[in-house]
Amino acid sequence: MRIDINADMGESFGAYKIGNDAGLMKSITSANIAAGFHGGDPSVLRETIRLARAHGVAVGAHPGFPDLVGFGRRAMNVTAKECEDFVLYQIAAVAGVARAEGVALQHVKAHGELFNMAFTNADLAAAIARAVAAFDKSVLLFAFPNSEVVKAGRALGLRIALEIFADRAYEPDGQLVSRRKPGAVIHDPELVVARAVKMIAERGVVAVDGTFVPLEADTICLHGDTPGSDQLAAKLRSGFEATGVTVQAVGAR
Amino acid sequence: MRIDINADMGESFGAYKIGNDAGLMKSITSANIAAGFHGGDPSVLRETIRLARAHGVAVGAHPGFPDLVGFGRRAMNVTAKECEDFVLYQIAAVAGVARAEGVALQHVKAHGELFNMAFTNADLAAAIARAVAAFDKSVLLFAFPNSEVVKAGRALGLRIALEIFADRAYEPDGQLVSRRKPGAVIHDPELVVARAVKMIAERGVVAVDGTFVPLEADTICLHGDTPGSDQLAAKLRSGFEATGVTVQAVGAR
Amino acid sequence: MRIDINADMGESFGAYKIGNDAGLMKSITSANIAAGFHGGDPSVLRETIRLARAHGVAVGAHPGFPDLVGFGRRAMNVTAKECEDFVLYQIAAVAGVARAEGVALQHVKAHGELFNMAFTNADLAAAIARAVAAFDKSVLLFAFPNSEVVKAGRALGLRIALEIFADRAYEPDGQLVSRRKPGAVIHDPELVVARAVKMIAERGVVAVDGTFVPLEADTICLHGDTPGSDQLAAKLRSGFEATGVTVQAVGAR
Amino acid sequence: MRIDINADMGESFGAYKIGNDAGLMKSITSANIAAGFHGGDPSVLRETIRLARAHGVAVGAHPGFPDLVGFGRRAMNVTAKECEDFVLYQIAAVAGVARAEGVALQHVKAHGELFNMAFTNADLAAAIARAVAAFDKSVLLFAFPNSEVVKAGRALGLRIALEIFADRAYEPDGQLVSRRKPGAVIHDPELVVARAVKMIAERGVVAVDGTFVPLEADTICLHGDTPGSDQLAAKLRSGFEATGVTVQAVGAR
Repeated sequence: MRIDINADMGESFGAYKIGNDAGLMKSITSANIAAGFHGGDPSVLRETIRLARAHGVAVGAHPGFPDLVGFGRRAMNVTAKECEDFVLYQIAAVAGVARAEGVALQHVKAHGELFNMAFTNADLAAAIARAVAAFDKSVLLFAFPNSEVVKAGRALGLRIALEIFADRAYEPDGQLVSRRKPGAVIHDPELVVARAVKMIAERGVVAVDGTFVPLEADTICLHGDTPGSDQLAAKLRSGFEATGVTVQAVGAR
Repeated sequence: MRIDINADMGESFGAYKIGNDAGLMKSITSANIAAGFHGGDPSVLRETIRLARAHGVAVGAHPGFPDLVGFGRRAMNVTAKECEDFVLYQIAAVAGVARAEGVALQHVKAHGELFNMAFTNADLAAAIARAVAAFDKSVLLFAFPNSEVVKAGRALGLRIALEIFADRAYEPDGQLVSRRKPGAVIHDPELVVARAVKMIAERGVVAVDGTFVPLEADTICLHGDTPGSDQLAAKLRSGFEATGVTVQAVGAR
Repeated sequence: MRIDINADMGESFGAYKIGNDAGLMKSITSANIAAGFHGGDPSVLRETIRLARAHGVAVGAHPGFPDLVGFGRRAMNVTAKECEDFVLYQIAAVAGVARAEGVALQHVKAHGELFNMAFTNADLAAAIARAVAAFDKSVLLFAFPNSEVVKAGRALGLRIALEIFADRAYEPDGQLVSRRKPGAVIHDPELVVARAVKMIAERGVVAVDGTFVPLEADTICLHGDTPGSDQLAAKLRSGFEATGVTVQAVGAR
Repeated sequence: MRIDINADMGESFGAYKIGNDAGLMKSITSANIAAGFHGGDPSVLRETIRLARAHGVAVGAHPGFPDLVGFGRRAMNVTAKECEDFVLYQIAAVAGVARAEGVALQHVKAHGELFNMAFTNADLAAAIARAVAAFDKSVLLFAFPNSEVVKAGRALGLRIALEIFADRAYEPDGQLVSRRKPGAVIHDPELVVARAVKMIAERGVVAVDGTFVPLEADTICLHGDTPGSDQLAAKLRSGFEATGVTVQAVGAR
């Protein structure tokens, strides 16, 4: 059994620092790197790629809405064409800076509300998939199981990496419990690790109503904006390794 | 004899239109395409690359200062590292979107005040050259003859395309007459064309004091923000062709 | 009978020109001035206020979504608090620059998609009304008849100016015909003027199905982004004056 | 004897937090509040004004260069007109939001590199002074003693508040020691407090060469971006009070 651990990286901007890139980079295997639209800037982008390379962490583009003050977390009614174009632009920027650092782009993962909307919005999902396919069909697309992104990616012949969330509760239908409901986010690090290990071992998750939901997973997402996230990442990695799960970038297989 | 005709393209932004891309694209051979920092946006960028491809015009990146409201025309005291990083980012964005459209990046030409400052500022010139070299050593760097950019590019083993200006007067030392002096810009289209043809035929220019200044040129720059620029471009192209000069993208040689 | 003619102004940005401010300013009586979020910049703002003052045109703030590349025309899922704060900020900026030019702020009119959403979104309408009330309860709020903005403004004791549209068709319920339907926008200048004059004379409009919809109006909106908008504005003004309607800024009563 | 303690506030932006506003606000008497150009956003601006009001801290506008990614710390070659216009805009925004919160604008203090450049650049100093005068001649202008800002402000009849720096070394001519020289910034909190108290008591400062430089001061600046800045502010305030210096907003006199 194998799993990839991914986290959002490179979201600092100028004098503004956010996240814990240096801490997390020690334990993750894939970095979703901001491209300057919801966070990040050209210097942060380059330094984050260098940091990933130094840790042997695979590099992905993390395109978001063009909304810096909203950190890409606010729904925007963009057209499919606008979406395709700004996702392509952001993939291009990350991939090109990575190329200058001798690193190939492994994957693309949409950020924030763009990621959320594309779960169910087939137009946006197709726009994201078209941007990836236009850039390079060999680049992996990270997608939530059973989402529109999976369908759109497969329709274009893209390689999909299915993603689960270590610190989020699941509905019986395999969707995430909405953040507006209590218990949506799991805060206890021990529980997060135990759950994650079990999700991989059992190829599924126990939903909030106790039912077992089968869930294939290629990569598991960690959030770096919480205190202690670097320690959680380290524990998660050792938790996997202790149970015989190989922790490895998904593109390395 | 051969010459490339280049012009700045893709500087519109959202609802804001600027320049005359469709008109000029019929006559030029190289397009310097804005990357969203001084002008341009992801959709404009992509459409401009498609337009260039449709006309067989070579595509270059046109990186500028991060100053949209100033259109990249105001000096900014950026560090060499900041400059290298934002130039690399802009090259990456243009090259990656071009790649998605099946077009290889031919060249890089700095925009506006970054272009002006790099004439004489060796640190900025070296930063620009490092960004090009880091991205791809086979990409051409457009540079003003005898400028610091030429030196910096050659020091890194880059291929340089020397650039002359059709509508600008020259000092006896080969520099452009400052725009603050009278006669710096030549407005008469017939004169612009006649001068340009002569510059290529005689491998030099007659300076404001009447002396002849030898000037090798690979490419000649046209400005698209003036009324009638598309007709001037057409006249310039026929002017060259009528005197046996092949008009061809510099990278096509 | 009296009517105010309003138009959006000051939406140029840096080197980018949009609209026909100088042409329209001769005929309108109220200017809705952009504040830099969807369009406009500090210098454009100030020059537009000076232009309005020179023509005796009343000055209003025209707050929009923080989306320059989308020109404020894309829905954004902002919170009511965010909306209240950025509307207040934009009112403050326009009013303060106007004050420096010796001009009092007459009104506030939301821009683009913020305007559209606030028709029916009570939370956004209340946020806009709260921003106006917090700044100055004597400032007029422009609102579409029967919209949530009217209710929210009245609930806070604001003075409302009801607005009609010269070039838009109406549904039998008094709503605008959606721009996605044919016939939503009336392009014939003669028809626009005839309709507008009739709307004021008869205090209502003939809807697309032929029924008469009573509509009180304090101000009528003209769009300046179409060719010939300055001539249309002049014709509209003379049309009103020829039928005995006084054309006057709504705040001047 | 009296002194005002000022600090830069409200420089957070969206999800990005910077500074220690809540900690410092307990001890300072004047807040220089960012207006969204080098830092700050509409919601941060309003919350910072509310925080200042809650602590009885006077509110000032802190206009900076339009360079968010550079935090206003990079020289930009703006024209005097551009500078006047964007300073006026930023004053208007802060003053108008303050007005909505029932707070009058006390002062204006330029930020970062704009502040530095205006020491010696008479054109920028005059532009800043014109912006303040155009907005409201009763607003105080914070200025470095003997700087061009003092001259420009006095020439327009503005009230000037002279400012000293608690944590910076001085040259014998009364200028700050450049940050590029060793010893430019004093890091020991005890020394900072002792120096500051002495500067007020003796109406001057001991320069790096040991000579005494007479310096009148109305306000003393603290930097909030260092760890422990809130404790330093508290110590500075008690240090003044222990020596009989009244700590009070400069506009309260």
